[in-house]
Amino acid sequence: MPPSPPHAVLLISCADAPGIVRALASFVADHGGNILDSDQHLDRATSVFFTRLAFTLEGFRVPREEIAERVRELLADRSPHLQVRFSDQVKRGAILVSKTNHCLYDLLLRQESGELRCEFPLVISNHDRMRSVAEHFEVPYHHLPVDRETKQEQETQILELLERERIDFVVLARYMQILSPRLVDRYSAQIINIHHSFLPAFSGARPYHQAHQRGVKVIGATGHYVTADLDEGPIIAQDVVHVSHRDSVRDLVHKGRDLEKVVLARAVRVHVEDRVLVYANKTVVFE
Amino acid sequence: MPPSPPHAVLLISCADAPGIVRALASFVADHGGNILDSDQHLDRATSVFFTRLAFTLEGFRVPREEIAERVRELLADRSPHLQVRFSDQVKRGAILVSKTNHCLYDLLLRQESGELRCEFPLVISNHDRMRSVAEHFEVPYHHLPVDRETKQEQETQILELLERERIDFVVLARYMQILSPRLVDRYSAQIINIHHSFLPAFSGARPYHQAHQRGVKVIGATGHYVTADLDEGPIIAQDVVHVSHRDSVRDLVHKGRDLEKVVLARAVRVHVEDRVLVYANKTVVFE
Amino acid sequence: MPPSPPHAVLLISCADAPGIVRALASFVADHGGNILDSDQHLDRATSVFFTRLAFTLEGFRVPREEIAERVRELLADRSPHLQVRFSDQVKRGAILVSKTNHCLYDLLLRQESGELRCEFPLVISNHDRMRSVAEHFEVPYHHLPVDRETKQEQETQILELLERERIDFVVLARYMQILSPRLVDRYSAQIINIHHSFLPAFSGARPYHQAHQRGVKVIGATGHYVTADLDEGPIIAQDVVHVSHRDSVRDLVHKGRDLEKVVLARAVRVHVEDRVLVYANKTVVFE
Amino acid sequence: MPPSPPHAVLLISCADAPGIVRALASFVADHGGNILDSDQHLDRATSVFFTRLAFTLEGFRVPREEIAERVRELLADRSPHLQVRFSDQVKRGAILVSKTNHCLYDLLLRQESGELRCEFPLVISNHDRMRSVAEHFEVPYHHLPVDRETKQEQETQILELLERERIDFVVLARYMQILSPRLVDRYSAQIINIHHSFLPAFSGARPYHQAHQRGVKVIGATGHYVTADLDEGPIIAQDVVHVSHRDSVRDLVHKGRDLEKVVLARAVRVHVEDRVLVYANKTVVFE
Repeated sequence: MPPSPPHAVLLISCADAPGIVRALASFVADHGGNILDSDQHLDRATSVFFTRLAFTLEGFRVPREEIAERVRELLADRSPHLQVRFSDQVKRGAILVSKTNHCLYDLLLRQESGELRCEFPLVISNHDRMRSVAEHFEVPYHHLPVDRETKQEQETQILELLERERIDFVVLARYMQILSPRLVDRYSAQIINIHHSFLPAFSGARPYHQAHQRGVKVIGATGHYVTADLDEGPIIAQDVVHVSHRDSVRDLVHKGRDLEKVVLARAVRVHVEDRVLVYANKTVVFE
Repeated sequence: MPPSPPHAVLLISCADAPGIVRALASFVADHGGNILDSDQHLDRATSVFFTRLAFTLEGFRVPREEIAERVRELLADRSPHLQVRFSDQVKRGAILVSKTNHCLYDLLLRQESGELRCEFPLVISNHDRMRSVAEHFEVPYHHLPVDRETKQEQETQILELLERERIDFVVLARYMQILSPRLVDRYSAQIINIHHSFLPAFSGARPYHQAHQRGVKVIGATGHYVTADLDEGPIIAQDVVHVSHRDSVRDLVHKGRDLEKVVLARAVRVHVEDRVLVYANKTVVFE
Repeated sequence: MPPSPPHAVLLISCADAPGIVRALASFVADHGGNILDSDQHLDRATSVFFTRLAFTLEGFRVPREEIAERVRELLADRSPHLQVRFSDQVKRGAILVSKTNHCLYDLLLRQESGELRCEFPLVISNHDRMRSVAEHFEVPYHHLPVDRETKQEQETQILELLERERIDFVVLARYMQILSPRLVDRYSAQIINIHHSFLPAFSGARPYHQAHQRGVKVIGATGHYVTADLDEGPIIAQDVVHVSHRDSVRDLVHKGRDLEKVVLARAVRVHVEDRVLVYANKTVVFE
Repeated sequence: MPPSPPHAVLLISCADAPGIVRALASFVADHGGNILDSDQHLDRATSVFFTRLAFTLEGFRVPREEIAERVRELLADRSPHLQVRFSDQVKRGAILVSKTNHCLYDLLLRQESGELRCEFPLVISNHDRMRSVAEHFEVPYHHLPVDRETKQEQETQILELLERERIDFVVLARYMQILSPRLVDRYSAQIINIHHSFLPAFSGARPYHQAHQRGVKVIGATGHYVTADLDEGPIIAQDVVHVSHRDSVRDLVHKGRDLEKVVLARAVRVHVEDRVLVYANKTVVFE
């Protein structure tokens, strides 16, 4: 099977109206592109139309930097929300981590094996513990300790690092600090967190303890975009596993780890492949 | 494979101490019984011991009506909570239902096929709609309408029916009325409800609408014992199914139906097979 | 939410080439239609392109009976395989059943509740047992007994019934007879069977016994189109459930029933919604 | 919660008869032990009884080395198959691996985090590629290349290494060589393999290719003990994941990796915790 050629991905949401698909398909074909993949969704309750369109760039006669503008003109009367991505511009992600290593290993391994199409040029932590993991994968590790007084300064350092390394998105791989609105706003819908419960159940601290206390028979994990409201951001991926009375909190933690890894990886994968659109605090995920 | 012979089931919870298993095993063997199945659980955080012990009754030299007393003596210094059941005394259940039929059909079919070892001599509804279903399965149907003013009277009628028919347990098969404490107390840990969400998420009304609104990627169902606090009772069984942005509320309702049936049936099955112990608002389910 | 308006569904597979999406989108838009849903898939190994396109019929200026021809012309140089369906022409299905009732009840209930968009005007059985079920749902029941000698004659009667009732598709809801090539060919990719294992494991007779014998830890069910090779047809849907050493063959049968119902219903649902394309003995299912 | 104290685990299978549970419970209690956990299973088709009994060793008045003998005497007339294990004698495992690293990382990480109660003092490979992984976890790595001519000699070296390092069990973590009967017999029911399909489907080579070819909608993984018949050994754990027509063979490989890791870890976990009994080429797994 030949590798996928360089292609553009359009992610569009706009007011629904007849002819959008034709307009986009004609735009692509008229300028020498070939549609590789297209997916669409109509939210019939709100009449909002969503689409993801991937097309070949080789021989495409509109310069890359003009594509967004041209598509925007095409849909001008439908006030589109639009993103244009290019498959050969690999996204650069920063991983933020505290003291547990399972999500960190998992992301770095999936990246190394080619399963995640992105780069991780940066691991940042408020502890020094994960340094050897990052170094094993030859990723620069930045230890930026934080306490109540240095919180603001630490975030300034984080922001500088992200800027300097031209970071596109951030993964909170069990990072046990709450980010300030400044950081969240700067990377809106670009910061992915893993919460160790099936939200909205057990938001907040120590969800496995809460789950054990309540005596649930399934536990879950949720990958979501970070917003100003803690644990209230748009959900990208969720999954659960069965538990029983035999499972202590420690067992839940162990079982939950496998979930957290898989769910976080799934959320990161669809994000870096430009498969996620956010609207009304929800996501459309074009798999 | 020979059918299971008549047997007794002991369900015991008590303070943990060495020798309980021996004491019970000796009690059974000394009087001519044979242990068919035994399961146990130690809650190490609270040092409470739970066990389910099934043993043959043929040739057992303690009369049935004395077994509870004798076991209680055996464990007197551990303040046991004790239930004794006999496999040939089939439990009698009443099904309460409102306007949807999927759980009702499902329970009656599973009972008819021998999957649920119980009888359903009674269907009660606040509407007349499900009469033909009950009659198809030759189960008496009682239509007891309810409004704010007749609520108390209707419950009195329900209680009388349950007493008259010697009902052991009640299944709320999508019964859209809140039971009064009088009824709940009378059948403590004997009323099973199906809630159409993975509790504690989306308790209360219209959980599928809530789930759609929040944009979750899994929906669930919860079978639980009814307590005075709505949707807060001990959870017996839970399961979930994946959903996506493509699923409208109506799709969630359809997908949820399959869950509701399966989860409610699972909860009823372990209840009628005397596999459930309740403690600290949680359940131990010995599968 | 407004109900879905009458629409046409195109199901197309053809050799891949640039411009297909544009050609189809233009065809729809140029004649006054609006695309409601479109999905596509490119099998990159074989360069075969698959698409499902749903568009509104109101105001569409090509008569229904000409649509297929016009689309065929459009794609003439790509030797398309093409089907055109109309959402207001509800499919008519016959259910064939032997002695077990769970799949029969399940299909009739889902049809009744509006979950399955089709009609079931006909139940055919080689036994008389399921008559009361069909009659409860007011569906005509035809008892056509079969033995080795009457096999051919019985199939002739089945074929006549299917023709007379203008049946579009057939569901084998645990029908324990092998169909002859004559019947299979007549309803190619229109006969759906439920096999009670995760094919290709445990094809043939008594799969639960085989599964128990082998000591597997999951059992499954498979919904597939019937072909001349038994249990070898294109798979439409599959699912599994966990089992353990505690499960006897009888337990597997019970657990399997839930699977069979859900998997068969899923296969029937995507079939009647024109979401399935068959190629190379596999299916593309556009959910 | 206090850590689990040192305890003994009895794993017994024998002909069923009344009084076994009492005999074992009395043996433990009479000599000053306390039962921590007991589980049992009766295969009613063959009348074989299985039990797992864990009891405290502190103050137990039978010396460890005599326990097996004493229990054997107790059950002498039932020809028991018996194993005695001690929780403070941590099992030592060797990991055999070829060219893929995901199962290797996974096992070493779970061991390091305390999730797997065992040691891995040895990684053996027919390639040199995984050396850096082993070294990162400070585990000695042995590169023993193999071709058709050196096969026997390589196995002799493996056996010597296993003996020298007092290895209790072997994990084939995607080891792409077939072991000779000599090695399989030496470690009977002590060699765990991960096969990347839901056996018995797709045994043999390239199961993901076979699965893709057949067009299945679920793929699976199977953890099993290795026997002389390839892919025919007793199954310990299985799980599956859903796939669709969109998944290329490469996607199946990616999705399968997560399954392989989780299923292999589950099989290893129950093995090292002495929860598995083998009989009739099947397993009883006491979770």
